[in-house]
Amino acid sequence: MKLKVKDIDIATGWPLVAVLNELDALKLDLHYEDRLKIKKGRKSVIAIIDITESKKVVPTGQIGLYEEVLTKLNAKSGNFVDVSLVEKPVSIQYIKRKLKGKKLGYKEIYKIIDDINNNRLSEIEITYFVSACYTKGLDLDETVSLTKAMINTGGILKLNKYPVMDMHCIGGVAGNRTTMVVVPIVAAAGLTIPKTSSRSITSPSGTADTMEVLCNVCFSIKEIKNIIKKTNACLIWGGSVNLAPADDKIIRIEHPLSLDPEGQLLASILAKKKSVSATHLLIDIPVGKGAKIESRKKALYLKRLFESISKKLGIKIRVVIIDGSQPIGNGIGPELEARDVMWVLENDLRQPLDLKEKSIKMAGLLLEMGGKAKKGAGTKKALKILNSGAAYRKMMQIIRAQCGKKIKADDIKIGKFRYNFRAKKSGVVTHIDNDSISKIARAAGAPLDKGAGIYLHKHVKDSVKKGDKIFTVYAKNKQKLGYAVNVLRKIDGVVVK
Amino acid sequence: MKLKVKDIDIATGWPLVAVLNELDALKLDLHYEDRLKIKKGRKSVIAIIDITESKKVVPTGQIGLYEEVLTKLNAKSGNFVDVSLVEKPVSIQYIKRKLKGKKLGYKEIYKIIDDINNNRLSEIEITYFVSACYTKGLDLDETVSLTKAMINTGGILKLNKYPVMDMHCIGGVAGNRTTMVVVPIVAAAGLTIPKTSSRSITSPSGTADTMEVLCNVCFSIKEIKNIIKKTNACLIWGGSVNLAPADDKIIRIEHPLSLDPEGQLLASILAKKKSVSATHLLIDIPVGKGAKIESRKKALYLKRLFESISKKLGIKIRVVIIDGSQPIGNGIGPELEARDVMWVLENDLRQPLDLKEKSIKMAGLLLEMGGKAKKGAGTKKALKILNSGAAYRKMMQIIRAQCGKKIKADDIKIGKFRYNFRAKKSGVVTHIDNDSISKIARAAGAPLDKGAGIYLHKHVKDSVKKGDKIFTVYAKNKQKLGYAVNVLRKIDGVVVK
Repeated sequence: MKLKVKDIDIATGWPLVAVLNELDALKLDLHYEDRLKIKKGRKSVIAIIDITESKKVVPTGQIGLYEEVLTKLNAKSGNFVDVSLVEKPVSIQYIKRKLKGKKLGYKEIYKIIDDINNNRLSEIEITYFVSACYTKGLDLDETVSLTKAMINTGGILKLNKYPVMDMHCIGGVAGNRTTMVVVPIVAAAGLTIPKTSSRSITSPSGTADTMEVLCNVCFSIKEIKNIIKKTNACLIWGGSVNLAPADDKIIRIEHPLSLDPEGQLLASILAKKKSVSATHLLIDIPVGKGAKIESRKKALYLKRLFESISKKLGIKIRVVIIDGSQPIGNGIGPELEARDVMWVLENDLRQPLDLKEKSIKMAGLLLEMGGKAKKGAGTKKALKILNSGAAYRKMMQIIRAQCGKKIKADDIKIGKFRYNFRAKKSGVVTHIDNDSISKIARAAGAPLDKGAGIYLHKHVKDSVKKGDKIFTVYAKNKQKLGYAVNVLRKIDGVVVK
Repeated sequence: MKLKVKDIDIATGWPLVAVLNELDALKLDLHYEDRLKIKKGRKSVIAIIDITESKKVVPTGQIGLYEEVLTKLNAKSGNFVDVSLVEKPVSIQYIKRKLKGKKLGYKEIYKIIDDINNNRLSEIEITYFVSACYTKGLDLDETVSLTKAMINTGGILKLNKYPVMDMHCIGGVAGNRTTMVVVPIVAAAGLTIPKTSSRSITSPSGTADTMEVLCNVCFSIKEIKNIIKKTNACLIWGGSVNLAPADDKIIRIEHPLSLDPEGQLLASILAKKKSVSATHLLIDIPVGKGAKIESRKKALYLKRLFESISKKLGIKIRVVIIDGSQPIGNGIGPELEARDVMWVLENDLRQPLDLKEKSIKMAGLLLEMGGKAKKGAGTKKALKILNSGAAYRKMMQIIRAQCGKKIKADDIKIGKFRYNFRAKKSGVVTHIDNDSISKIARAAGAPLDKGAGIYLHKHVKDSVKKGDKIFTVYAKNKQKLGYAVNVLRKIDGVVVK
């Protein structure tokens, strides 16, 4: 059947969609979410069908095409295209099988992930998959299959080295920029550590956002290999190298219900590590009120899962469960965090000692795993590398290799407008809530305004007198400072007893 | 925050969607599928957010609004609107609870169904609900709650009568237009039977499509009351009176994976019956290869479920399980079926006896349930009413009350182009596949082309000689006849042994 193209001036991102009038759909015996092959000359695409009752949107005899489909077909309004029904992808049968509680094998999971990657499944279909994984659970084999499928459908940074170190933090703790201290220590010790990080989704800053204050974080795989050759390390945004790309689409589907199915969480983390050729991996699970994982029992469960799956993937792993009940470091927000990191590396008096302490502990474990320190001697070695200035010089090398400019903490400028939150009574700080601190920092403009955020003058267990500054909010302008103060008044987040 | 309206020239049907540029979403701290209140003057709507990276689609400072939102706000391109974040509907928490396997109460299920009805939930969110009901199942209480929620969120046809008879067939058997024979018999006996039917979704014709050959089937609740007052009955399309409206949206979500969760199926049927004030209900479950329910065990399970739920709803029910392994009647397709029905009512020699037999059996049971015949004497009474011409005269009354014209079988014109499928060898017909017959009839143009479809000359157990006509395909034009013959060659569907 031939139909006339109508340009629908919007991009859906994914998947590819074509809109037909109800009457044409009836004529062609097509239903909502059926697949249509659309041909123009030698070019063809497969799109998912949406059906409209409105003649205004798409009249009969026409087919509404979104930006992405038009580009792929090199078509414009008024062109004619040939359409024919094609079978639904077989992966839909596999999703249904999982919904019924059956176990899926590697080939089936690979097909689902490959189809998600290539925009062959609709949002509804992917939702069924996510939901099946959530309600029926993934067993060990399935999680390993999902991890392998994510690796094999994405980009790979092939490094012919051994060992290749890597680290990952489960997240949810404000500040916590240990990565940017650990990587230069480990690389200064002569180990390879190709670190990819994420940007913030719901936090005031991701490691990639904070590193971006100092230098570029988006590179191609070729450029990354060059950076690693020069410095043993990199500190880049994972999104720029297309590792495990199906993951982003799955996360988008999970967001409306804030789902976090374990199998998928683990597969997503491990796939990204395996994709950068990691052989040794340190996982950090902060536990505490307001952190992503709130109970020690859940953390131990995840630890065992990580260990089992890593074994099957041939990755040597070490999982540490640490206190995540309050923010780590003083700064929260990209520039405030970057300044903390540089103060630690510069051994400046203003450095946050909790960040330093956690970083050398983590770096120490990696040094032990990589054979650069004996068991139990890692922390001491890491501290030595940090205090000698070797880690600072390594960080400068990395920043320069990543086209950076700012290499001193004092080069970093913080938001001009500020508000001090002061203690309403004297006592001891007993709780600083990660979640509340994040919300205030985001309201102030973080992570988009790099200089916005919060600086903590006090931590849990510190004594305060009435009127003492507990934290300062920074913002780019008065209005955003106002937003943050509004949020602060509603949720507070600091307990003094 | 104020944003400038950009008109996006497409209607989504539901839910209400607003598109923001990625940078504005970041500034407002909004995420995919968050809710936004959009205000213009005194009018406001709540829309679900979609986020675009493309400046071409929606530039920063603007908000892309679809047709439905523009209409509700009375806004056009260039207007300014005020936007603010609103909380997600609480029903999302209930959906998550069900996904986790918890049981939902009436208030929670009502809120979900009400939000689906009022376009407050996105497709992804509804998919999670459908999927939770499918994987975790609905127990008896939950199914009753779902049924009541569907009744209380939709239109109601209030009839102050007792008894009010109704019937429903689970479907999947081609032809099977018993309803159009049963209703006039039952009404002629003096019982009230307000029958609403569906249109075809994947079959060659629904009862509403077939009835539409003879008269109008879309009426308002007021008009329907009038028709019932005149005739004791009606034979209309349920979609025109908005009974249990959430149902259609749920069915649309189930379609991509062809899911059919029992709880939802039963709730959907019983809600529609309760909404027309039915007090006595006859359910017909055809069982057999190619029917919707293929095993007797499954049919018995559904029978018990129907009985339990109806009891809680105060409906007297009778469930019959009958042979559904082959089509019933000779015609398949709107006009071919309507002609069969009229032949039965007219007692014409060409009437299909299987349709007649099944219809008097069903009508007999309804007469017994409604107190118009003693137990065991219903079929005989029904046959008497049919043979006396009273049912035919009642059907004429109904057709006239529904603004109809054609009241004789011979007024009905069948598709001009035809193809005879003949026996390739002599023997006995052992199988006629419902599903294959449906596909061929749809390819020929049914239900859109009212005259298209199939006429069966032979049924299962009939003897045939090589070259005998087994069925004839009818179509409006040569091309569609070609489509049907192509399908026929691929799937066949008739077994002669």
